[in-house]
Amino acid sequence: MHSFEQLVEIFETRLNNTLPFPLGPATLYEPCRYFMSIGGKRVRPVLCLMANELFGDITEDAYRAATSVELFHNFTLIHDDIMDKAPLRRGQTTVHIRNGLTAGILCGDVMAIYAYEQLAHIKTALQQVLHLFNRTAIEVCEGQQLDMDFESREDVSLDEYMEMITLKTSVLLACSLKMGALLGGATTGNADKLYEFGKNLGIAFQLQDDYLDAYGAESGKIPGGDIIANKKTYLLLKAMENANALQLSAIQALLTRDDEAKVPAMLSLFTNTGADIACRQAVAHYSQLAFNNLEEAAVQSSRKQQLHDLATYLLGREK
Amino acid sequence: MHSFEQLVEIFETRLNNTLPFPLGPATLYEPCRYFMSIGGKRVRPVLCLMANELFGDITEDAYRAATSVELFHNFTLIHDDIMDKAPLRRGQTTVHIRNGLTAGILCGDVMAIYAYEQLAHIKTALQQVLHLFNRTAIEVCEGQQLDMDFESREDVSLDEYMEMITLKTSVLLACSLKMGALLGGATTGNADKLYEFGKNLGIAFQLQDDYLDAYGAESGKIPGGDIIANKKTYLLLKAMENANALQLSAIQALLTRDDEAKVPAMLSLFTNTGADIACRQAVAHYSQLAFNNLEEAAVQSSRKQQLHDLATYLLGREK
Repeated sequence: MHSFEQLVEIFETRLNNTLPFPLGPATLYEPCRYFMSIGGKRVRPVLCLMANELFGDITEDAYRAATSVELFHNFTLIHDDIMDKAPLRRGQTTVHIRNGLTAGILCGDVMAIYAYEQLAHIKTALQQVLHLFNRTAIEVCEGQQLDMDFESREDVSLDEYMEMITLKTSVLLACSLKMGALLGGATTGNADKLYEFGKNLGIAFQLQDDYLDAYGAESGKIPGGDIIANKKTYLLLKAMENANALQLSAIQALLTRDDEAKVPAMLSLFTNTGADIACRQAVAHYSQLAFNNLEEAAVQSSRKQQLHDLATYLLGREK
Repeated sequence: MHSFEQLVEIFETRLNNTLPFPLGPATLYEPCRYFMSIGGKRVRPVLCLMANELFGDITEDAYRAATSVELFHNFTLIHDDIMDKAPLRRGQTTVHIRNGLTAGILCGDVMAIYAYEQLAHIKTALQQVLHLFNRTAIEVCEGQQLDMDFESREDVSLDEYMEMITLKTSVLLACSLKMGALLGGATTGNADKLYEFGKNLGIAFQLQDDYLDAYGAESGKIPGGDIIANKKTYLLLKAMENANALQLSAIQALLTRDDEAKVPAMLSLFTNTGADIACRQAVAHYSQLAFNNLEEAAVQSSRKQQLHDLATYLLGREK
């Protein structure tokens, strides 16, 4: 059984060996190479490989699926950055800023196709994996569309927010795990448990991200960045749901401003409406669901240790 | 054996039945439905179905491949329109103008995935079809990138132009035919002949398009539109290749202008440098190659009649 760090290293080596994008047209492939090289934690491919290793030695098919999911994830990031007008990703210049809109669109497009070309090499359960991957990919697009829609909507409910983060973020983690499991010969029951594990892990992770953006002090991020940007997070939506009339008008007044000075006032409102506690409870709730799902997978407990450790690491960022 | 018109009708009916995009998010799927409904000649799916029918009754797999290729083609059009800043497509407003940049990018993305979901249903030769489709899709992206690069390059050669139109346009026609053939149980030899038929047909069609834009009077198009836009077409590149020093400086002077009044002067230069004859000869050359490829496919001649008729129709637009 391999640790997270070991699998990241193995995956990076294989990624570099199996994925030399062609040299030309350089205007297309140089930005692809650039974006794949600026990192990311490679969580999705490692989840795929770990789920595969639950059932035996890691298979060639699992490496294909892992590479595919990482390519797909990076494709979505490149296009999301265009839609979000983001200048930076992982501290580096985004493709559309660095190479222009055309390169941003086309690099994303071609990376999505390279993702499918990795899947096309899979020798077992190809059709099942393709359907799962496609359904997930469609959901990721739907999630991104909802996220974009929410920016200009004033009536987003907490349920809608949960749906959005599930589609935009969680299902791809879930799909990575289920692909790895299926390609390891897992039963449908076990594969589904791992899917649910990934989904709940993803939701917990995203809600924790919302919480830390407001209350944490992560390196490299502006504290309260979401608050300054008036982003509809779990905290804001829950605060609006719980607020009395006075609190609600205070929140709405703050939403007309975009200065750093408003952060402490909004944090107080999150606390006074109970949104901060609700968010911490939701993180704990979905974390618990995830660990339960992992527990329920009918695999020797010792084999699950690495997935357990990775989930703990991902969710262990609270102070 | 079905005619072009019959297959278009059959295909449209199946498209409407098998492709009800989900209702929500409406911001994502309404523009997809809109774009798929504004038409197009459905040449690619019909080529796929005709190639399939060469070898027997049209199969369910062939309908899946036909639907896939039409979805993929429309995905590329939506993204190309963004890159070209095009306000109109088929006389209708483009998606990014009608619904915004985010919708344009995401509708294209999700339609590409729906294209793959159609392929995922294929029951025979799935892996072979996937590899072919992926290679083609990658080439289409490369062709679009080259086309974009050419806009800002002054040293585009005729060879590079031929490579670009082959990748951007012809290989998808070729792929449509080859998929249809493979899914009809064709031998590799016959499938490859049909691929070459489609590739040469596509090149002939594109060169004819260049010619008609300059010399024809197609309804709905500005005569000499490419000349006014200083587009690097076969005619312009050939004229520059053939020109003497005096002619070359005349061409370069015209390329600094973008008024309609320059069209007759440029047409004279195309004629005087022999570019117009060369273009007509190239159309004839690639047309002949295409018909030879079709001839060489080891299928009863009577079964090839519909493909022959369609190619004649597509290439028969000269006066």
